[in-house]
This record gives sequence, C-alpha cells and structure tokens, in this order.
Amino acid sequence: MKVVVVAGIPGSGSTTVLKKALENLEYLHVNYGDVMLEIAQKMDLVEDRDSMRKLSPTLQKEVQKKAAKSIREKSEETNIIVDTHCTIKTPLGFLPGLPKWVLDELQPDRFILIEADGDEILMRRISDTSRTRDMERLKDINLHQEMNRAVSMAYAALTGATVKIIENHNDGLDESVEDMIKTLE
Amino acid sequence: MKVVVVAGIPGSGSTTVLKKALENLEYLHVNYGDVMLEIAQKMDLVEDRDSMRKLSPTLQKEVQKKAAKSIREKSEETNIIVDTHCTIKTPLGFLPGLPKWVLDELQPDRFILIEADGDEILMRRISDTSRTRDMERLKDINLHQEMNRAVSMAYAALTGATVKIIENHNDGLDESVEDMIKTLE
Amino acid sequence: MKVVVVAGIPGSGSTTVLKKALENLEYLHVNYGDVMLEIAQKMDLVEDRDSMRKLSPTLQKEVQKKAAKSIREKSEETNIIVDTHCTIKTPLGFLPGLPKWVLDELQPDRFILIEADGDEILMRRISDTSRTRDMERLKDINLHQEMNRAVSMAYAALTGATVKIIENHNDGLDESVEDMIKTLE
Repeated sequence: MKVVVVAGIPGSGSTTVLKKALENLEYLHVNYGDVMLEIAQKMDLVEDRDSMRKLSPTLQKEVQKKAAKSIREKSEETNIIVDTHCTIKTPLGFLPGLPKWVLDELQPDRFILIEADGDEILMRRISDTSRTRDMERLKDINLHQEMNRAVSMAYAALTGATVKIIENHNDGLDESVEDMIKTLE
Repeated sequence: MKVVVVAGIPGSGSTTVLKKALENLEYLHVNYGDVMLEIAQKMDLVEDRDSMRKLSPTLQKEVQKKAAKSIREKSEETNIIVDTHCTIKTPLGFLPGLPKWVLDELQPDRFILIEADGDEILMRRISDTSRTRDMERLKDINLHQEMNRAVSMAYAALTGATVKIIENHNDGLDESVEDMIKTLE
Repeated sequence: MKVVVVAGIPGSGSTTVLKKALENLEYLHVNYGDVMLEIAQKMDLVEDRDSMRKLSPTLQKEVQKKAAKSIREKSEETNIIVDTHCTIKTPLGFLPGLPKWVLDELQPDRFILIEADGDEILMRRISDTSRTRDMERLKDINLHQEMNRAVSMAYAALTGATVKIIENHNDGLDESVEDMIKTLE
C-alpha cells in the first residue's frame, strides 16, 4: 500500500482540499505531529503537545523516527495520508519536517504540495479570525513556498518519490479536490 | 575518466546542443533510458520500451541501479555523457530521474542543465509538429525548470558534483555549443 | 555546543554582519577554507592556498572530511561559526561547499544565509575596488542566490538543521546584525 505525504503552508487550504478528497477514497489520514505526541506520551516523555518542543534534540529525533516507523508499519494494511509540513517556520529558520532519518523509516511513495498564490494566502490568513498568528509579508509567504519546493525535491532525491504540486486558488476548490483525487487514486 | 550527466526539459534543445558539442570531443554518449531497457531485456523482464513502465517499483529500482553501475564501469575506459532527465513529469508529479540509489552507483562528476526561457520552449514545442504532446502552459514550463534546478542541487549535495546551467536561446546555438564544449573539456 | 554555518555570496555582506554580531557573543569563528589549508599543510600535501585546487579529488575529499571532523570536535568546548559558501561558482558550475560526506562529519545545527537584492550586490561589487573580479550580470547573481537556497534545503534534509535567511539591505546593517544575534543566541 501507499504512503502519501501531503503538505501546505498555513492558508494554502491543504486540510480542506484533503478532507474533501478523502470523502470517497480509502485512506487512513494521520497527522504526523499527533503520532509523534502519542509516541512521546507512551514513552512517558511528555504530557501535552506544548512540552514536545522542550524535548532534547536527541529525544525529538528518536520520537520522530518511531512515529515514521509506526506509520510505515500501518501501511501494510491500508493506504496512508501523512498530513505534515515540508518545513516548519521557526525563529531560527526553516526546520525540515522530514529529515533523512524520518524518510528512511517512512519510505513515502508520493509527496503532494498544496499551494496558492502568495496574495491569496495572505488574504485567507487575514480573514481567518479564529487564530491569532504573526502576519507574514507577501515576500515571506512566497519564500516559504519556494523553500518547500526546494526541500521536497531533496526529499524526492533521497526517496525516489514523486512530487506533485496542486494549486488551490480562490473559487477553485472543486478543481483542486479533483486533482487531489486523481493523484491519490 | 569523467561521468557527466546532461539534462534538459523537452524543447530546451539539450540533444541538439549536445550532439554539436560532441562532434569534436571524445565522449561515449549514452541514453540512460536505453541502458535501462537493454538491461531489463537481458534480465528477460521486458520485450520493449512500453513494458518498462509496468515493472514493479522494486524491479524498476533494480534495473535503474544496474544501469547506473554498468555506465560507471564503462567510465574506466572513456569519458561518458549520460543523457537523461533531472525529473520526469508524470501525472503523479515530478519523478526524480537520479534518486540516491542511482547516484550511489553512477557517481557523476558533473551535471549540466540546458535551459531556455519559458516562452522560447513553449514556441519550440508548438512548432515541433513531429511529436504530439500535451501542451503545457508557460507557468508549468517555468515550474519544471525550477524543480530541475532544485533537484540538481540535491544531487550535488549527495555526490559533490558541480551543476552547470547552460542557456540555449533562440539564435544562440553556437554560443551554447561553445559553453558546452568548455564544460566538457 | 552548537555548530552554525554562515554563508553568503560575495557582496552579500556576510562577513561584515557576522563580525558585528560576534562582538558580543561567545563563538569561535572559523573559516572552513582556512581549516582545510591548515590540515593539508600538516599532511604535507600543499604549501600554500593556490596549490589546494591542484589536489586530486580523492585527496580534496579527505582534507574536507578531516577539516569537518576537526571543527565538530572543537564544538565540544565552544559554540562554533563556520564561515563558508553554500556553493562555489566555478567555470564548471556550482560546486557544493558542504557535500554529504562533509555534513556527516560536521553535523551542523543551523545554517544562516545572508542575502541582499541582486542589484544591491551588483552595486557593492562595482564599488569594491579592492578586488578585481569578473563582473556577473544581475541574473547570474540572482541565480547564484537561488541555487544556494536550493542546496541549503538539501543540506537541511540531510542533517535536520534549520535554514535561516537574513536580509542585509543597504542602510539596514543594524537590523541584519540584530537578526543574526537573535539567531545565534
């Protein structure tokens, strides 16, 4: 069975596209962060999500690996979507979400990046009053998408997996969902 | 001796530039796809090129590796040009042409990407009536070249090889050929 | 302790930003090229910097590895800044400054790229009469920065390190230094 990684920056609409596409497809949909949290809790390392960041790099790496391994194992029985980020934007820079040791365990078959134009993402973030987040400038949004493309090609070189970019423009949700379904079938 | 990988998207003119440059240079010019086909035929896996796509991923990987190894071995006696693609555009996304296990066997010394402006490539494809291909939009052509640059830098990080970009503009073939010759000498 | 790699193309002002930022921080500041030269001299391979380029690829690789290892060892006692290049622009193309075998030994924790707009870099190079260098065109400067971003994300995928981009615009040195200090603290 397949392991497909789906990623998009905040405001790309990746979760919306993915949920709609999965209505008619047989995929187990897991969030990589959730799996990591679960494993760290089982290992008695943390109680809640906030404490995850305080783990030492060595422990974080171990949890990351175990999460990847557990996802790969589940794929023996079912197709799996891994909902995650290509890179996480931190004050120290872009942190790769799927470094080599994760890819070695996860062995993904496909990457799908959901993108939108920078100004669409900017407007979606401004309109989303449910979250307070630091507002990024247009050029920072464009840079984040550029870095995600670059890192996804490094992931592809390491794994042999394909990288599909699906555009999710305003008023184009149906088309994006259809693209996603075709790529998952 | 050297193993040099040359790649360019359809319409970049990579084959034209390469053939002209090789008129006065001592290089064995191999097409990676041809070598794979030959090896798959020897292994009694396929009869023709079309069947190659139907091989299981595991078998494809094995054939890819053997092709890379056989090319590297030939380089003990002669300089070799490997004519291939950085990424192949498929309905499932960009497929890396030289994933890690290929690079480990091939050990390329140099990558050369032949590029042109997106609109030049578009017009060349429209004018080329010898092939029927799905027409890509300008932004898709630009994206493909961007992804090839990104993946070539991942290949470089894995191998230590240099990445040279040679522009092949309209009415500029002589200059491109000269650039190519300088990079191959 | 941390190993932080700082890089920027000529004219980005990386050395200026770095020196100012380090005035108030405890970091050992090493130049990767200097460490390589020192090691090659100890191994009786070369006498001066110019001879470094004439080493065989195999010997260069060995020197590169030893330099990386020696830097990582020093990081047991102190935080280290490694001043180097993501890629070196050569007549044969972009040469990766930190290929896999270097990263495996160096194990960097963070990458910091210093960038400026292409036209700012062009004007700084023209004004710098202390060095004679081949003048690159604006598009070549932009390409070099794009390739450095791409290769840095490949380095990130291989190491798990973060990649921070710090912009160093004209009349903005104080801000760039402040950004650098925050990323190094």
